[in-house]
Amino acid sequence: MQLGLVGLGKMGANMRTRIQEAGHQVVGYDPRPEVSDVGTLADMVAALDAPRAVWVMVPSGDPTRTTIAQLAELLEPGDVVVDGGNSKYSDDLPNSELLGGNGVGYVDCGVSGGVWGLRNGYGLMVGGSDDDVTRLMPVFDALRPPGERADGFVHAGPVGAGHYAKMVHNGVEYGLMHAYGEGYELLSAEPLITDVEGTLRAWTTGTVVRSWLLELLVRALDEDPGLAEISDYTTDSGEGRWTVEEAIRHSVPANVISAALFARFASRQDQGSPALKAVSALRNQFGGHSVKDSSGRSVGETGTPT
Amino acid sequence: MQLGLVGLGKMGANMRTRIQEAGHQVVGYDPRPEVSDVGTLADMVAALDAPRAVWVMVPSGDPTRTTIAQLAELLEPGDVVVDGGNSKYSDDLPNSELLGGNGVGYVDCGVSGGVWGLRNGYGLMVGGSDDDVTRLMPVFDALRPPGERADGFVHAGPVGAGHYAKMVHNGVEYGLMHAYGEGYELLSAEPLITDVEGTLRAWTTGTVVRSWLLELLVRALDEDPGLAEISDYTTDSGEGRWTVEEAIRHSVPANVISAALFARFASRQDQGSPALKAVSALRNQFGGHSVKDSSGRSVGETGTPT
Amino acid sequence: MQLGLVGLGKMGANMRTRIQEAGHQVVGYDPRPEVSDVGTLADMVAALDAPRAVWVMVPSGDPTRTTIAQLAELLEPGDVVVDGGNSKYSDDLPNSELLGGNGVGYVDCGVSGGVWGLRNGYGLMVGGSDDDVTRLMPVFDALRPPGERADGFVHAGPVGAGHYAKMVHNGVEYGLMHAYGEGYELLSAEPLITDVEGTLRAWTTGTVVRSWLLELLVRALDEDPGLAEISDYTTDSGEGRWTVEEAIRHSVPANVISAALFARFASRQDQGSPALKAVSALRNQFGGHSVKDSSGRSVGETGTPT
Amino acid sequence: MQLGLVGLGKMGANMRTRIQEAGHQVVGYDPRPEVSDVGTLADMVAALDAPRAVWVMVPSGDPTRTTIAQLAELLEPGDVVVDGGNSKYSDDLPNSELLGGNGVGYVDCGVSGGVWGLRNGYGLMVGGSDDDVTRLMPVFDALRPPGERADGFVHAGPVGAGHYAKMVHNGVEYGLMHAYGEGYELLSAEPLITDVEGTLRAWTTGTVVRSWLLELLVRALDEDPGLAEISDYTTDSGEGRWTVEEAIRHSVPANVISAALFARFASRQDQGSPALKAVSALRNQFGGHSVKDSSGRSVGETGTPT
Repeated sequence: MQLGLVGLGKMGANMRTRIQEAGHQVVGYDPRPEVSDVGTLADMVAALDAPRAVWVMVPSGDPTRTTIAQLAELLEPGDVVVDGGNSKYSDDLPNSELLGGNGVGYVDCGVSGGVWGLRNGYGLMVGGSDDDVTRLMPVFDALRPPGERADGFVHAGPVGAGHYAKMVHNGVEYGLMHAYGEGYELLSAEPLITDVEGTLRAWTTGTVVRSWLLELLVRALDEDPGLAEISDYTTDSGEGRWTVEEAIRHSVPANVISAALFARFASRQDQGSPALKAVSALRNQFGGHSVKDSSGRSVGETGTPT
Repeated sequence: MQLGLVGLGKMGANMRTRIQEAGHQVVGYDPRPEVSDVGTLADMVAALDAPRAVWVMVPSGDPTRTTIAQLAELLEPGDVVVDGGNSKYSDDLPNSELLGGNGVGYVDCGVSGGVWGLRNGYGLMVGGSDDDVTRLMPVFDALRPPGERADGFVHAGPVGAGHYAKMVHNGVEYGLMHAYGEGYELLSAEPLITDVEGTLRAWTTGTVVRSWLLELLVRALDEDPGLAEISDYTTDSGEGRWTVEEAIRHSVPANVISAALFARFASRQDQGSPALKAVSALRNQFGGHSVKDSSGRSVGETGTPT
Repeated sequence: MQLGLVGLGKMGANMRTRIQEAGHQVVGYDPRPEVSDVGTLADMVAALDAPRAVWVMVPSGDPTRTTIAQLAELLEPGDVVVDGGNSKYSDDLPNSELLGGNGVGYVDCGVSGGVWGLRNGYGLMVGGSDDDVTRLMPVFDALRPPGERADGFVHAGPVGAGHYAKMVHNGVEYGLMHAYGEGYELLSAEPLITDVEGTLRAWTTGTVVRSWLLELLVRALDEDPGLAEISDYTTDSGEGRWTVEEAIRHSVPANVISAALFARFASRQDQGSPALKAVSALRNQFGGHSVKDSSGRSVGETGTPT
Repeated sequence: MQLGLVGLGKMGANMRTRIQEAGHQVVGYDPRPEVSDVGTLADMVAALDAPRAVWVMVPSGDPTRTTIAQLAELLEPGDVVVDGGNSKYSDDLPNSELLGGNGVGYVDCGVSGGVWGLRNGYGLMVGGSDDDVTRLMPVFDALRPPGERADGFVHAGPVGAGHYAKMVHNGVEYGLMHAYGEGYELLSAEPLITDVEGTLRAWTTGTVVRSWLLELLVRALDEDPGLAEISDYTTDSGEGRWTVEEAIRHSVPANVISAALFARFASRQDQGSPALKAVSALRNQFGGHSVKDSSGRSVGETGTPT
């Protein structure tokens, strides 16, 4: 089938390759002329036969919303749009209604797999009507991993369900990564363990904790033993926050995922943690801990009861 | 080679099968005559040619310590003992010294893989001297998964390192399981997600969160949709506690693993949580929340500022 | 001065008493005729001399928003409204703008102290313009505890700051209450401690942890030793959730407050924790834990390595 | 009465003053001649009339254990020793047995109040036999705050109970301090709050969260607005760790106290957090996040789905 693809960054370009290799025709648009197949978004729409399918793969938030608003102007009844970015699920219903007002269908698709998806296929979580999803199945089948369709693809529910599932996926990912991180840190702290990397590598096969993330961690340690080149400054991309917000909305105790999220926040406190400054200040106040007397001499003692 | 194997429970019996299938001779001892190859532990030792190798696969704690003390009496210089159970790593040095006093070697081996190890092979984490570990490699090779030895096997360090690595492995396992649990709970709470199990199944392939544990969770949901037959009462087997204790000893922040451990504790509070009773009592005290006036009439109001 | 007071529930009635005792005139309105001074909100407005001051003390959310919308119709330029309820701070700017369109001022005031405020005075956190706050100082002075004004009263910032400060106050309260709760639970679990209540009572004086909440906890234990009549089912009133949401928005690690919030969520899971059911199901899957064989016989063993 | 007092550091010296002001005779020993009343520990014992009471106020661990071993040699049947330091409760039974072998009684006493205890009195938590505790009541009454004995003093149980109660007290203190710390940090992060310190000061009176610790925090902010001179490097003195270890032993979920403890651990990770380095490394691996291609050019994109 034919597919318009908006956004030819790393992810978009890889996905184009995979879709083309499955025998489909892709007309790609990107604001950077050197990578774009067409000059404008309107050119892309014009190059597709109706009923059209257009996949949007641009950063979430304003860029995606703007692109979809433009497509709402350009597309015709019977066309369908997929938002494959990491949009917040609450954007999906407005997007769907905007397009639906012009008779254009809408599907939200969470895509997982990162740079490895080109080779391995992408895990896909889809929300939308049965009709819209069915129409797009050839593209989904091109993108998802080979093998059983239910492994790597789910039609999780109506519009919004795909991004919701992707959001939770990423929240779980936060927790998994941090669990491995804590294990790595504890192994590294214990002198008995003389081969930390070998221990993690051994875990990749046969054990209960084996996973793809663990394989990636071993790979990272192969490339950079001790992770000497890696900063502990860790950003977050939105889904972790949204997951905890949703946990709050649904009264779900999310201790593990929130702990992983908060650890990332703490990693970025370049000026130190105000909370811990308050704790330090309190310890100074009630004494024993670097209390200064009137002459400026420290009179506190470690181990003094407080 | 020849191996004495003490303990023929589910794990021990499966391991015997796997070792035998690799062409080795196993003389198994178990206190239950119907499954034992020999009548007594002494009979087992007598049935082995020196220098002997004996694998202990009995519950951790007193049973393992007792068995090793008995073997210290029965074995001869040049023999070697493996503790393959879930012993605390701090038991290893005393065990090693007890046996070493009689010239008997000692290796601790953490074994992961559960009931699936019979088919898939077991992940092995080993602590001990190079000589002792080398002597036992044929048995380790029989037990570990086929393929690269470094995947599924590590000589992690001196005596104690194997159980230490296994302890951390299980601590990480707590965190991973709980991360998936929180994701499952949140998906289940959100009406948009009409196919929770299908979403988890989709995650098993192509996604960042794919893992063996996730495959098992999907398997559990296949067998029991909605986990209707499963209680949320969750025990713990020691390693989770030890992992957090070690984290404290090494000043490692273990927020994720401890959250998973504490959630298990909470699941067993049949009489309710005393901490939360205290919180409820406080809310009653400062008012607005089911405060009773002198006539016994409730005068509190939800939403009243406190 | 004169004050209109909308809402004569427990809090509102107590506040009326305190304001009247300071020599001010209060015209109270409540939809329940038996407690109301006037028949309608319009009657209340008519009974006040311009420029008027009206204090709204009704449940947060729709009731407060509706009341303020009605006041926007009834009041005149130069009047001022105080929202003293537990409104979300994000309601304040819209309320302020709605009233401001008609020349009516707006102040948000977080009120703490519960049923004890009648006797002790209320802690007040106020947001608004200097002019509006200054006009209302006689009422604030009536409500706040006697003594230094800065103890028990703060003009924290512009419109919204009062409710923001109150929200954080309540978030901190969650953490404090849970810290005491954990201490109470641990003391109760330890056989060495033969006088748990006496220990808490001793803490109320001289120690580092002394506080009003601790005094209330001792009071609750006096009334109900062992908290036998108290359920561990604990609701939450919004501010705890908002505090964690704000922490996420500001990238503030809020491990303690979120742990307290999530524990309340968990206390209400009458059907058990889906997350822990998933953990239990996983433990069953990888074996050793109540695994059933084909005959329905349990073949798992506690303490078996997994 | 007469009291021998070993250890005249800040705490010991203050306590001596308070005991003397109550009319008792104190013979103090300290290894520093310039502050000691006597030349040696034996001199101190010789200066006391039998039956003697000796209070040990030296750092916990080896110094306390050594002092008590020396006293076991020097004292006589009928004498009694108090350990008033922050010893681990598990030291108390061995200490008690060592002294008891010579007919010397033993009481453990947790002391709270810090440098403020001199003026306000100390909160005391005591473990021991009724007879031993009764004998020492004049000293306890001198040290505890004036007023009701049950406020500021508890005979919590047999030997060990005093230090256990003090340990839990300090664990709770960790949680309280961190709850205030998180509140302070969130107030500081919100632009609406133009008077953070004033908000905390207002909280000290009338509100639900008022406490002595909060007063100290305001005092610290008075002395150092913005806590500009305070480091967020925060040590811990043992009781927090022991509290979490005890929570694990008793299967008590201690999410709040452990979160406060782990935050202190994290504050001391000068080389960065290995766990977060692992998380960063994983993010690099699965792409989108500063992934480098073969030419060293970054090809990842923020916001790219993974």
